[in-house]
Amino acid sequence: MDFHIYDTTLRDGAQQEGMNLSVADKLAIARMLDALGVGFIEGGWPGAIPKDTEFFARAAAELRLEHAVLAAFGATRKAYKSAADDAQVQALLQAGTPVVTLVAKSDARHVERALRTTRGENLAMIADTVELLAGEGRRVFVDAEHFFDGYRFDPGYALECLQTAAGAGAEVLVLCDTNGGMLPSRVFDIVAEVRGQVGAGIGIHCHNDTGCAVANTLAAVEAGAMHVQGTFNGYGERTGNADLTTVIANLAIKYGQDALPPGQLANLASTAHSISEITNIAPFARQPYVGQSAFTHKAGLHASAIRVDPDLYQHTDPQLVGNDMRMLVSEMAGRASIELKGRELGIDLTGADEIIGKVADKVKELEARGYTFDAADASFELLLRAELDGKRPEFFQIESWRTISETLGAGDGDTSSEATVKLRAGGVRFVATGEGNGPVNALDAALRKALLPVYPELNGIRLVDYKVRILDSSSGTDAVTRVLIESSSGKESWRTVGVGTNIIEASWEALTDALSYGLLHAAVAVR
Amino acid sequence: MDFHIYDTTLRDGAQQEGMNLSVADKLAIARMLDALGVGFIEGGWPGAIPKDTEFFARAAAELRLEHAVLAAFGATRKAYKSAADDAQVQALLQAGTPVVTLVAKSDARHVERALRTTRGENLAMIADTVELLAGEGRRVFVDAEHFFDGYRFDPGYALECLQTAAGAGAEVLVLCDTNGGMLPSRVFDIVAEVRGQVGAGIGIHCHNDTGCAVANTLAAVEAGAMHVQGTFNGYGERTGNADLTTVIANLAIKYGQDALPPGQLANLASTAHSISEITNIAPFARQPYVGQSAFTHKAGLHASAIRVDPDLYQHTDPQLVGNDMRMLVSEMAGRASIELKGRELGIDLTGADEIIGKVADKVKELEARGYTFDAADASFELLLRAELDGKRPEFFQIESWRTISETLGAGDGDTSSEATVKLRAGGVRFVATGEGNGPVNALDAALRKALLPVYPELNGIRLVDYKVRILDSSSGTDAVTRVLIESSSGKESWRTVGVGTNIIEASWEALTDALSYGLLHAAVAVR
Repeated sequence: MDFHIYDTTLRDGAQQEGMNLSVADKLAIARMLDALGVGFIEGGWPGAIPKDTEFFARAAAELRLEHAVLAAFGATRKAYKSAADDAQVQALLQAGTPVVTLVAKSDARHVERALRTTRGENLAMIADTVELLAGEGRRVFVDAEHFFDGYRFDPGYALECLQTAAGAGAEVLVLCDTNGGMLPSRVFDIVAEVRGQVGAGIGIHCHNDTGCAVANTLAAVEAGAMHVQGTFNGYGERTGNADLTTVIANLAIKYGQDALPPGQLANLASTAHSISEITNIAPFARQPYVGQSAFTHKAGLHASAIRVDPDLYQHTDPQLVGNDMRMLVSEMAGRASIELKGRELGIDLTGADEIIGKVADKVKELEARGYTFDAADASFELLLRAELDGKRPEFFQIESWRTISETLGAGDGDTSSEATVKLRAGGVRFVATGEGNGPVNALDAALRKALLPVYPELNGIRLVDYKVRILDSSSGTDAVTRVLIESSSGKESWRTVGVGTNIIEASWEALTDALSYGLLHAAVAVR
Repeated sequence: MDFHIYDTTLRDGAQQEGMNLSVADKLAIARMLDALGVGFIEGGWPGAIPKDTEFFARAAAELRLEHAVLAAFGATRKAYKSAADDAQVQALLQAGTPVVTLVAKSDARHVERALRTTRGENLAMIADTVELLAGEGRRVFVDAEHFFDGYRFDPGYALECLQTAAGAGAEVLVLCDTNGGMLPSRVFDIVAEVRGQVGAGIGIHCHNDTGCAVANTLAAVEAGAMHVQGTFNGYGERTGNADLTTVIANLAIKYGQDALPPGQLANLASTAHSISEITNIAPFARQPYVGQSAFTHKAGLHASAIRVDPDLYQHTDPQLVGNDMRMLVSEMAGRASIELKGRELGIDLTGADEIIGKVADKVKELEARGYTFDAADASFELLLRAELDGKRPEFFQIESWRTISETLGAGDGDTSSEATVKLRAGGVRFVATGEGNGPVNALDAALRKALLPVYPELNGIRLVDYKVRILDSSSGTDAVTRVLIESSSGKESWRTVGVGTNIIEASWEALTDALSYGLLHAAVAVR
């Protein structure tokens, strides 16, 4: 039986405090998970959450998945009703996914005290709903909610729930530690006991309330589970779900279990970081395998030994998961990666050791100040070209800018923003004022207005994404701000970065980089 | 044999990237650990790190420990020298601690390739150093560095290192997973194998590189270890050490192992938070047991069941570790969760069905516009009080505000931001101008300047966190912006939210909510 990596970032991960994903966010994350090669993506609960209903409608129209199979999550039918007449069950069918994952009660106490029905009726609800969905051609996975607590309370009934689901056609029975209180040795014992007594694959779904979600997941796999659920970066309610990045890396590296398609493990770190850009939840530096500090060494004592014999001081090669060893003293800059990046941009840097050294130093200095070039390839290219050509590609010279935001009228009135930009372009001085619904929007309008007479190609370029992150947020509103802007010419898109203690200044930097890059490439295209 | 909780926050935890503890910080943390009732506190490496030498000198003079025993950390003597003449060993004696913890190599590859000596000489170094320290009346614990990797490479030699230490008088042999690559089932097997073959207690020291540090520690205890090492909040190099808060809670609650003196477990959460105040590393909300989100529920669906029967939805009682169950108000929120949230805020809403209905509708409407209340409890309280009292608590009336950001001088010059606020407070009209390193910072300065004459208590309130999120970011700079601000009075902290297409307007809303909430609670405190 195939081994399943089943991601529930979009459903269970979205339960995290402070997380609020739009449909567009969910589609973007689904694309990233698919590109990495995750087996299953649980998109949400259609029918119960309007945003999730919309997600599945848009997914059907827009998402072209290469590796992943989409799953809709839902519940068994209502008590004493028919499954065919249950609106929630119908919404699951309408979602049109190949897989439906049904949550079912398997703890007798929850059946009686939360669901408030009988044990027998709960079994009928499981049987009817699985049968109906399987009869409509769906692959049905059953999440046995509170399974471990239920099994410890009344093993006979918990098993009967699983057997009923399997008998009705469920392909996988997912044992859920819903409250997260389990420990690995107990998980191992229960999975091993249960496995031989049900006629379906066994899955595992853990929460991290004892700090053991990853270990519990691995214990279940050791006991024979073939389907693991988790969320990227361990997002989720309370202490979160099992972190799928850690689970995937452990399975591949420690157990030799192919969790991703060949060659994809090296994209694990970048996928984890890209997802955190979308959720806008700062990555956890100490996150295993993919965290910024995961392979970082402080030890001055061991520095030379590490350089000679790194394997003595790391449990695995960080490159396997797309991460890097970092030394906090005498940091080694990524010369090789700069050469590689140049090649990617069509700039051959072979033998250009001096340039590479200068760029590496510049990147190191800027990253220490809060810049990040992984997510801002266009700003990196401008920096690289500045070193190669001796100066930055310059399409305009800014003289000054100013932006004003103020309340209109008294009290609760609207807010207006305007900006004035003074610059020279094509040998002529321009002064332009623009309005916008925020200071950055107003600056963008003024800048374009000033430049359009000389560069009409700017009409084809627009900003498509604007992200703000406060670095070192513990200093409140005077912390350093990083702005990332994504721009598009319709055919191509590119990302630029700006950093400053002033959010407007940081935005201005990313904005001017964005237009400079657009003009540079428009010029190349015309030539 | 007594069970040991051995804290190495001050030594191994301090290896964390970005952590820099002063001697005063270390003394403060030692006092907190002692007050909680931790058994052993490893203070540092005297002789090797000057700050640590000073720590032990000041500890001897100033620290009066009630529960904890202080340990100095150091290494075995140099190769081919006498232990008595070794300056580092002498510094360990001079630290004057009852316990000395010696790190010793137990992986043959490290002996040969990093230490660059012979296997026999390494054994002699262990024997000599342990004997000398034990002869001076010290209790000696030996950290067997890289033990698990060493044991898998050459079990005979790794065991010989342990046996040599025990024979020379070591009380505890601590098996260290220095590179952090182990998994629980393997730790269990190795500890079980080793335990019967050495005449001393077995300890465990884990790092979190596979996300299993806590589980590995528990596996060692299941296999018979009687001494557990870890750091508070899991601080440490790379992915950190085993988080002692999680280990202690699991041992006490899941294994019935008394890890702290009677009655002290309930101080676990506050100790973890106090330590993070000193390290100035923001607490991790999803941290098991003690994290802010550890017992937080979002699901509106289950809110009514949680109210009736909380134990169905939590793996343990949060009060055991000094934490609380929290309910988040969100778009899925039903009436039950609003009633629960009211109770949490000290507002009894029993029977107030009309108010609850109005608040639920309001929350739903605002969340559809981009607000989020699960991360902004203070804004929710203001909204709830507005419904209860018929109007919002109002401490000032804004007439207008304006903020200007502009370049100073030509070209690449600095940016300046200033703001002017006009308002009425306490019956008087105030106009104030503030400067800042960004428009929001300038508005904050102007607002405080205007309000201080009437509300001097604002001096005690400061903004500690500012987050910006662009919602539906695919529309570029004209998308809706959500701002979250966290404020603190030193004793209490609270979160407010603002939303708008204009980032300045959204920030202004969160800012005025933050000050209103602070003034509301300062007023309550005075009454």
